[in-house]
Amino acid sequence: MMVDDPGIELVPRFKDQGYSPDQVRERREWLERKAGVPLPLVGACAIPTEQMRGNVENPVGSVQMPLGIAGPLLVNGEHAQGTFYVPLATTEGALVRSYERGMVMLTRAGGVTARLHADQNVVSPVFSFAGVAEAARFAAELPSHFDALRAEAESTTRHGRLHRVEPRASGRAVIVNFYYHTADAQGMNMIVKATERAAQWILANGLAPRFRVFSGLSSEKRASGFLLAGGKGKTVVAGARVPAATLESYMRVTPRQIADVWHDTVVGHLQANAIGFNAHYANGLTALFIACGQDVANVANAAVGITDYEVDGDGDLYASVTLPSLTIATIGGGTGIGTSRECLAMLGCSGAGHAPKLAEIFAATLLAGELSMAAAIGSGEFVAAHETYGRNRPSDHA
Amino acid sequence: MMVDDPGIELVPRFKDQGYSPDQVRERREWLERKAGVPLPLVGACAIPTEQMRGNVENPVGSVQMPLGIAGPLLVNGEHAQGTFYVPLATTEGALVRSYERGMVMLTRAGGVTARLHADQNVVSPVFSFAGVAEAARFAAELPSHFDALRAEAESTTRHGRLHRVEPRASGRAVIVNFYYHTADAQGMNMIVKATERAAQWILANGLAPRFRVFSGLSSEKRASGFLLAGGKGKTVVAGARVPAATLESYMRVTPRQIADVWHDTVVGHLQANAIGFNAHYANGLTALFIACGQDVANVANAAVGITDYEVDGDGDLYASVTLPSLTIATIGGGTGIGTSRECLAMLGCSGAGHAPKLAEIFAATLLAGELSMAAAIGSGEFVAAHETYGRNRPSDHA
Amino acid sequence: MMVDDPGIELVPRFKDQGYSPDQVRERREWLERKAGVPLPLVGACAIPTEQMRGNVENPVGSVQMPLGIAGPLLVNGEHAQGTFYVPLATTEGALVRSYERGMVMLTRAGGVTARLHADQNVVSPVFSFAGVAEAARFAAELPSHFDALRAEAESTTRHGRLHRVEPRASGRAVIVNFYYHTADAQGMNMIVKATERAAQWILANGLAPRFRVFSGLSSEKRASGFLLAGGKGKTVVAGARVPAATLESYMRVTPRQIADVWHDTVVGHLQANAIGFNAHYANGLTALFIACGQDVANVANAAVGITDYEVDGDGDLYASVTLPSLTIATIGGGTGIGTSRECLAMLGCSGAGHAPKLAEIFAATLLAGELSMAAAIGSGEFVAAHETYGRNRPSDHA
Amino acid sequence: MMVDDPGIELVPRFKDQGYSPDQVRERREWLERKAGVPLPLVGACAIPTEQMRGNVENPVGSVQMPLGIAGPLLVNGEHAQGTFYVPLATTEGALVRSYERGMVMLTRAGGVTARLHADQNVVSPVFSFAGVAEAARFAAELPSHFDALRAEAESTTRHGRLHRVEPRASGRAVIVNFYYHTADAQGMNMIVKATERAAQWILANGLAPRFRVFSGLSSEKRASGFLLAGGKGKTVVAGARVPAATLESYMRVTPRQIADVWHDTVVGHLQANAIGFNAHYANGLTALFIACGQDVANVANAAVGITDYEVDGDGDLYASVTLPSLTIATIGGGTGIGTSRECLAMLGCSGAGHAPKLAEIFAATLLAGELSMAAAIGSGEFVAAHETYGRNRPSDHA
Repeated sequence: MMVDDPGIELVPRFKDQGYSPDQVRERREWLERKAGVPLPLVGACAIPTEQMRGNVENPVGSVQMPLGIAGPLLVNGEHAQGTFYVPLATTEGALVRSYERGMVMLTRAGGVTARLHADQNVVSPVFSFAGVAEAARFAAELPSHFDALRAEAESTTRHGRLHRVEPRASGRAVIVNFYYHTADAQGMNMIVKATERAAQWILANGLAPRFRVFSGLSSEKRASGFLLAGGKGKTVVAGARVPAATLESYMRVTPRQIADVWHDTVVGHLQANAIGFNAHYANGLTALFIACGQDVANVANAAVGITDYEVDGDGDLYASVTLPSLTIATIGGGTGIGTSRECLAMLGCSGAGHAPKLAEIFAATLLAGELSMAAAIGSGEFVAAHETYGRNRPSDHA
Repeated sequence: MMVDDPGIELVPRFKDQGYSPDQVRERREWLERKAGVPLPLVGACAIPTEQMRGNVENPVGSVQMPLGIAGPLLVNGEHAQGTFYVPLATTEGALVRSYERGMVMLTRAGGVTARLHADQNVVSPVFSFAGVAEAARFAAELPSHFDALRAEAESTTRHGRLHRVEPRASGRAVIVNFYYHTADAQGMNMIVKATERAAQWILANGLAPRFRVFSGLSSEKRASGFLLAGGKGKTVVAGARVPAATLESYMRVTPRQIADVWHDTVVGHLQANAIGFNAHYANGLTALFIACGQDVANVANAAVGITDYEVDGDGDLYASVTLPSLTIATIGGGTGIGTSRECLAMLGCSGAGHAPKLAEIFAATLLAGELSMAAAIGSGEFVAAHETYGRNRPSDHA
Repeated sequence: MMVDDPGIELVPRFKDQGYSPDQVRERREWLERKAGVPLPLVGACAIPTEQMRGNVENPVGSVQMPLGIAGPLLVNGEHAQGTFYVPLATTEGALVRSYERGMVMLTRAGGVTARLHADQNVVSPVFSFAGVAEAARFAAELPSHFDALRAEAESTTRHGRLHRVEPRASGRAVIVNFYYHTADAQGMNMIVKATERAAQWILANGLAPRFRVFSGLSSEKRASGFLLAGGKGKTVVAGARVPAATLESYMRVTPRQIADVWHDTVVGHLQANAIGFNAHYANGLTALFIACGQDVANVANAAVGITDYEVDGDGDLYASVTLPSLTIATIGGGTGIGTSRECLAMLGCSGAGHAPKLAEIFAATLLAGELSMAAAIGSGEFVAAHETYGRNRPSDHA
Repeated sequence: MMVDDPGIELVPRFKDQGYSPDQVRERREWLERKAGVPLPLVGACAIPTEQMRGNVENPVGSVQMPLGIAGPLLVNGEHAQGTFYVPLATTEGALVRSYERGMVMLTRAGGVTARLHADQNVVSPVFSFAGVAEAARFAAELPSHFDALRAEAESTTRHGRLHRVEPRASGRAVIVNFYYHTADAQGMNMIVKATERAAQWILANGLAPRFRVFSGLSSEKRASGFLLAGGKGKTVVAGARVPAATLESYMRVTPRQIADVWHDTVVGHLQANAIGFNAHYANGLTALFIACGQDVANVANAAVGITDYEVDGDGDLYASVTLPSLTIATIGGGTGIGTSRECLAMLGCSGAGHAPKLAEIFAATLLAGELSMAAAIGSGEFVAAHETYGRNRPSDHA
């Protein structure tokens, strides 16, 4: 791929890309010399190096991140049913304790109900035309070709299923959202390839003169309003009724205080022009995604969602999280290698058939984290908790 | 923290929170029994367990993620000067190769210029009043108390420096942005604590009747317009002039084709109602943050930014990334433990004094990734590249 | 409606709400006494006062705003075909001249092509449930009741047609977008009433325990990402190819300079976290809506859209506007009274059957305004033009 | 300005632009012939035609819109103190009645408190450089030239006062927000001209090689997050405590029901990815702006804001509106001509010195509208009210 360039020292190249243990070691030693630092922990890699092929290039070892567990978390889903101890990979002190606190309370309150509203992934190529009239004709006509588009798209994949196409006007171009069911894979590469095939068919049949497979609309790995509007990945909701007494006993706040925190911080989000509203989905999602071999960059889209609280007539709290874009997998990507497989197995979610279950567990976990954070703010204990558990103690670097 | 609750089996509790090797092993063995799965790789933990204190609770071992390196990357910063080989922890096939491709080309083109525009972090407590008149009076008067606020805030920290407060009207409340310089720490816990102290002073002096230390405005770990408006963490820009011949030789696209990709995908972002514009900061940031012991959840805010391309009069390309909210650290958090310290050391960025340098290297890395992605889209090679390097090959799960 | 309240002097009440000429005069005279100011121009009202019933309460006369005309504007639409002189009601100096300049150039370039992509309006009631499971069941089941929902909804209206319902997960609630075709009416009141009827049917049949007819999602009279995602009102696109020579002759800029203005100001919009991108749709829409009896508050949603420019291979400019939410009417509201009817008639758009035509003319008008503004920025003439035509001359109030 | 173009029939040109009564009539008669429609109401223009110069080009007469009044509205502002009857120009049935209902209740509850937090307007030119290093240097250095910038800018205006400049990083460009106090003028033209002068000084002194006076960041006439972050025009807040008994007596809802409507519709706004939150500022603002000779297109920015409700410990409601971008004027633009001057005079706001007072009255008016709408939703009376007062009755076009 690289042209020869004297004066620029490339990372060493190896036959077959260099995934053997010796090649990885050799590359690491080269790096140690170049950087002038020893890398013993990077070298203490428990992942068989050949397993890294397809997941990373130029491997030199592995990084390690502490793994804590939080639970018990009782989930009453359609796919996840039972009590779980959830793996969280993090270096942020107090995070595991905070999620655990929410989980224990929710379990004590009867558990978390979770439901999948949609299960799809989307690619949004853009087709360009000579003028707006041609674009409008294409947008109007495209849905009539759905069967052919599906046949083309699905010819490239055993698991992806195209279930609808939605054209959107954009000047003399038309962006088309291709929505797929991707089974237990995150599926982005799969459906990009399928969509490219379908787009080629569109060109071959004279429906459009040119296209790009990416327009950016589908919002892979970024926050956007589109994610709320259409969903991307699993759209999953989790909720729980928390009796006032349970909340006060575990969290030292009342349902009304939680609702007041919601009010005040929703206003803050509106002032910030944020997308959606939640206290810290990104914290829980990151820890779950790293532990379970998900594509961690997908946190950028998955962290978009809405946490909600209502005080019911009887004074109890109803709490929920709505996640329109939980792009997760139990096969493919990093799910099968190293510690990821073990973490998925902990949850009974390793391999095919388990992605919906994983989605419900993740949603329930986030609900626990939201409640714990809201309660810490409502009770004024947030700073104190971080003093106790976090690394940010005076003796460290205050 | 938990009340005793028969019927709910908590994660085992230990004296002193359980960070000794035996306690971690004992907790892991308990989990293996509960979950019915062996966890040998989680147990193959190279991080001394006692080092995990302050970074995780209920530890059971560690997760491992493949580490690849990409380079050389020539950076002409104010703080980072020289050629770097950059550690990227990922399981997304083709990512390292893609960033490397951009780095080699940028290095060949003379390197990346990087500059820090601002270096601060922000907390935004909300103060509430009986009515809008009282709130307005407070907002008008608060800046006159800056010296006292600074003295209070800085009394809690050796490194944090309060440099301005900005009140914002919000009904009968006033949200106040407290902006700090946090030296080489990410600093969020530090400045929350400092701000709480300052807010207590405000109450004690009768300026406001109540407050919450979090309003959500400051957008820690979320995407928002606020991040672009005010900055949070390092505001850093990286740019490079790429001669047309260099671009075409390495990337098989012309500057105008890159500009056309920008045009088309900016429209897609506008259609998506996304925040800012970039191809995939989240990919690079996640891989960097995991490798270098950053708080990975901060990717949610750090991935907000704007990538820009212009074709100059001489036909060359000018490419840049603007990152308003790069919340990173070289001390504190996860930076000092395990493989993180080694990855930071690779870049000459371990410990105090190096956060600005790290920011410039990160920004330059993202520029490489943006160019590589834009070129792959512009040349139509994106799908082919992922077929070659990614795990998403037909034999896997297509 | 008001309880009797001594000490608060209400606006005078009249029999039958007071729309006779005498009653309007009497009310105006009361106001002149209360305010201590004569209102001769308000009283110089040419609208028959009885015609105001249903459009305003407590009438005291009318306001007058200058009306200018801009043209010729050649439109090649599906519904609008021919040359138009467009009425613009405004007090902003230079606005009419600016739009006229764009219209003349576009006409000279062969005219504006316009196309309607969608024609619908939407109400988004929210249905609430005991928990997330019940909400998910409702969302899954609702589409199967579409025929009944349509029958109920359409029983309240002669013109509204329900064509789809789209449930959206929202915690233990479900927001349902009811999409209607509203013929030539703006139709908001019509479809709110129809939706309320359908929602009552949902309750009566035990599908949901409670609802609100407004959730805010449908974004009536506000800017939002939702408008781009789904459309509201007419979704209309207008475009034109402008030869480089024509552009330079009329506007003293090159196509590339226009594209550069687009680039620079799109970045500004991204920095602002604005919705969509355009130079000043609000200016043109406001002037059109006031002239033509539209609900002017709908400018808040209608001004969301995307202006785009591309320089083609032959060096010509292709310019377009995309309007996802042009909520307009040729019947109902203010379209039939006073000067509005005359302004609509000028365009051949008064009365039933003409709303699509009006949409195409409005879109073409906006394109003219966008080009004129972009050219003024690109050529550096903006300030000078406002000095010449605007009220903001030094002698006024500089 | 137009080149001669046979075959395109321009709107007739007159000496001195054609503002005499005869010229306006002649132009109107030409239009009547071209369009084939009589325009008697457009011709029934009470505005002296010569007064239109500087406010419109190619005048043919005026449009008339019904004017209703709502009140009494008791305002306890710093600038507005007393009881007002507010002019609202609209064709939307029920709007005046709805605002009046809220005003009477608020007056009965003791009136509306209003406060101005900021009073400024902003232009945001963009300065471009060879690379990011040069841009960063400029951004760092610019504030040191503030005195010179102010002198240049203020040399072009008698009323505008530059009070700060804020550079923002944007790749190899720097957008600079120039914030001005514009006294009683909306001031956009004034400060664009002043900023152009200051920018020319920057170029002349070699600080930057080129600039555009508009970047789009300042968000004139568009909705954006920037408006909340920095303010543009008057930033004004209005609030009122409404006793539960008063609310229930006038509106048939409880404070808690109002808060519940807020909750439900805030979630809808979050789902819509709207900016800020309010029920219908656009309605009130449009009616006020048209009546009072404001630049109606500014509703696009002015309608961004946040309505808030809280139930206090004693069970009463506290309601507020926060308007970050109320761009209004009492001099210049359309404020001095025709009916506008009379409407401003009704409020004691015509001419210099009254813009802050007008801002407070407008904010109080919006609060009345928000409460009335929220109550109508909360009590389920919304549809019924529109059946009674609106034009949308079955006999019209249902």
